Amino acid sequence: MGVSFATRVDLLKASEIREILKITARPEVISFAGGLPAPEVFPVQELKQAAIRVLEEAGSQALQYSTTEGYEPLRRLISQRIAAKFAVKVGPENILITNGSQQVLDFAGKLFLDPGDVVLCESPTYLAAISAFRAYQPGFVEVPTDDDGMIIDELARILLTTERVKLIYVVPDFQNPTGRTWSLERRRQFATLIQEHEVPVVEDNPYGELRFEGQIPPSIKSFDTTGLVIFVSTFSKIFCPGMRIGWVAAAANFFEKFVLIKQGTDLHTSSISQREIAKYCELFDLDAHVGKIIEVYRKRRDTMMEAIDGLFPAGIRHTYPQGGLFTWVELPERYNAVELLKKCLERNVAFVPGDSFFPNSRVKNTLRLNYSNMPEDRIREGIGRLAQVIKEYK
Amino acid sequence: MGVSFATRVDLLKASEIREILKITARPEVISFAGGLPAPEVFPVQELKQAAIRVLEEAGSQALQYSTTEGYEPLRRLISQRIAAKFAVKVGPENILITNGSQQVLDFAGKLFLDPGDVVLCESPTYLAAISAFRAYQPGFVEVPTDDDGMIIDELARILLTTERVKLIYVVPDFQNPTGRTWSLERRRQFATLIQEHEVPVVEDNPYGELRFEGQIPPSIKSFDTTGLVIFVSTFSKIFCPGMRIGWVAAAANFFEKFVLIKQGTDLHTSSISQREIAKYCELFDLDAHVGKIIEVYRKRRDTMMEAIDGLFPAGIRHTYPQGGLFTWVELPERYNAVELLKKCLERNVAFVPGDSFFPNSRVKNTLRLNYSNMPEDRIREGIGRLAQVIKEYK
Repeated sequence: MGVSFATRVDLLKASEIREILKITARPEVISFAGGLPAPEVFPVQELKQAAIRVLEEAGSQALQYSTTEGYEPLRRLISQRIAAKFAVKVGPENILITNGSQQVLDFAGKLFLDPGDVVLCESPTYLAAISAFRAYQPGFVEVPTDDDGMIIDELARILLTTERVKLIYVVPDFQNPTGRTWSLERRRQFATLIQEHEVPVVEDNPYGELRFEGQIPPSIKSFDTTGLVIFVSTFSKIFCPGMRIGWVAAAANFFEKFVLIKQGTDLHTSSISQREIAKYCELFDLDAHVGKIIEVYRKRRDTMMEAIDGLFPAGIRHTYPQGGLFTWVELPERYNAVELLKKCLERNVAFVPGDSFFPNSRVKNTLRLNYSNMPEDRIREGIGRLAQVIKEYK
Repeated sequence: MGVSFATRVDLLKASEIREILKITARPEVISFAGGLPAPEVFPVQELKQAAIRVLEEAGSQALQYSTTEGYEPLRRLISQRIAAKFAVKVGPENILITNGSQQVLDFAGKLFLDPGDVVLCESPTYLAAISAFRAYQPGFVEVPTDDDGMIIDELARILLTTERVKLIYVVPDFQNPTGRTWSLERRRQFATLIQEHEVPVVEDNPYGELRFEGQIPPSIKSFDTTGLVIFVSTFSKIFCPGMRIGWVAAAANFFEKFVLIKQGTDLHTSSISQREIAKYCELFDLDAHVGKIIEVYRKRRDTMMEAIDGLFPAGIRHTYPQGGLFTWVELPERYNAVELLKKCLERNVAFVPGDSFFPNSRVKNTLRLNYSNMPEDRIREGIGRLAQVIKEYK
């Protein structure tokens, strides 16, 4: 008979980011390649107290199998938090706790995509969303995107002319990889348009709370009157990523399916981790903690922006993120960012070439820089090295 | 356009066990329905110490993103453990840590199954494996199974006459639902046969260490010279299920694909939970802990067997499990276990009707009883009630 894999397996490939991270794990490398939060601000002592309290108070119950939907007090807490922060009005009964928000992307693929269906996404878009969806063998159509978000006329045209659009994937707040945030007007127009076309949307918002200036805008979900928008977020960026606790907030018809998928996939998310986060939020002030993260990242963002503006040669554009973890650099067209990376690695500085963030178009002259994971002197030094390599590039 | 789900969604349905568990959550119900470990033996105090030590020693590193493959010391520990217990010889580099063993079943579906492919399984088989695979739209063929495991001649015939067999799923040790264990001879014959046919096998072994008498037999994987057998297990039954830590041990060609799938699905399993289990194993004696679980479950098994033999009317067969969590009851053919359950719920006693464990044949006159989660007096009382309802059944 002989072993043969499912056809989807041909489409699976190692994440370039992960492979690069392996190379850049050497301490002498200044890596802007990862997307790691700053570990200095993880609430280690507070979590220790929360963990002790959970085991003392809940005991063996915290270690038993639990419901697929998740720990009720945590679901309630999330429901209140996303209402306050993002104007998402979804009750706890419609919130499912998942293994990070990445798992929701897999579930959305499982729920909506047959081979040959189409996913619309920003151009560029989050690399690991492409990987998650790709396992379900869709086509991707990149919607032209500017500094204010998807260009609505372009989206309208694509929706009218494209068969089998099953899902739209967007990251409207401090997008990975560009750091861009959608304008309020675009959010409204987008919500109107997708309701006309009745297309489900995954609104992925892991970074929205990490805003360095200005007000958090209402989510796209807040303009959704028909339950088409699936709001996804995580504790990874505001608490810690290692526990893998994310969630999806969705209207009943989608929520019920997500629960069935979660049940068949891995039964439920860690009972004890869910209780620990809920206990942390009871004992400590998560908002104050997020405030500390913002302080650290804001300085790093400032440092990177100043260094880029001061040291890069003319003719290079970059985004100016008001929050989140990333900025996006566009080099003149003659540059190939993969080649540039190879030269940079010789100087012990790293980034992610932008082409992997485009499912189809593979634009060659862009790159993503992360500023959250590196102290300011290293950011200055690293941008200096990068500027030098850019100048020497033939 | 209108919302439409992927075709697989028609096949997803709520697990009957979960629905029944909801009904039976009332404290007055004696439930043999679940598959829950005894929470009395969870190592709560020991885990508290391990959790404190992890946060004190690893600090923020325990809370950061980590590798997809898993925490190296835990992978090493598992490699040693499954070699010692099950004669599985797989190095740490071929062990992937997952969210419980359930996640591996989902991954195996993702790796091997296109719609219309065929999965062979025992008859009956583990309900949640059916759910996990079903999302990938295979057909199932039940291989006739007796007290010694799959009947090899029948398997040989099926392999010769069935197109598109992509995967065989087996639980050779204290199977869920039957409590049966494959004989050594059958394991050997099975390994030979699947190597002839080059069919990948998922050997799911969550219960094997919980053996009340006799020696743990070598796994099927131990007879696998060609890397076709994927060995799957978990800490859920020997430590606690709430942390959702399982693993897969597989030859390189499968292992690499599982890592890619894990990466796209949820990046990695909880860093901190993996470290906590490794730390527990460093500080305490897991074997001694498993010994305690065995003592408790053996008594419960004995109590249930005595009660069944003493109280059930003649003509009812049941398995006599030498370990694990379940026994399997076969009633005379005129019984319908779903009807019987309805009557039992009126008397506040519950079980899982056997039909959901058959993907195709839906045998009506069987039921699964769990004995791990109930103290002995409740087991006696519950079996008494069940015996009464069986006698009164028209």
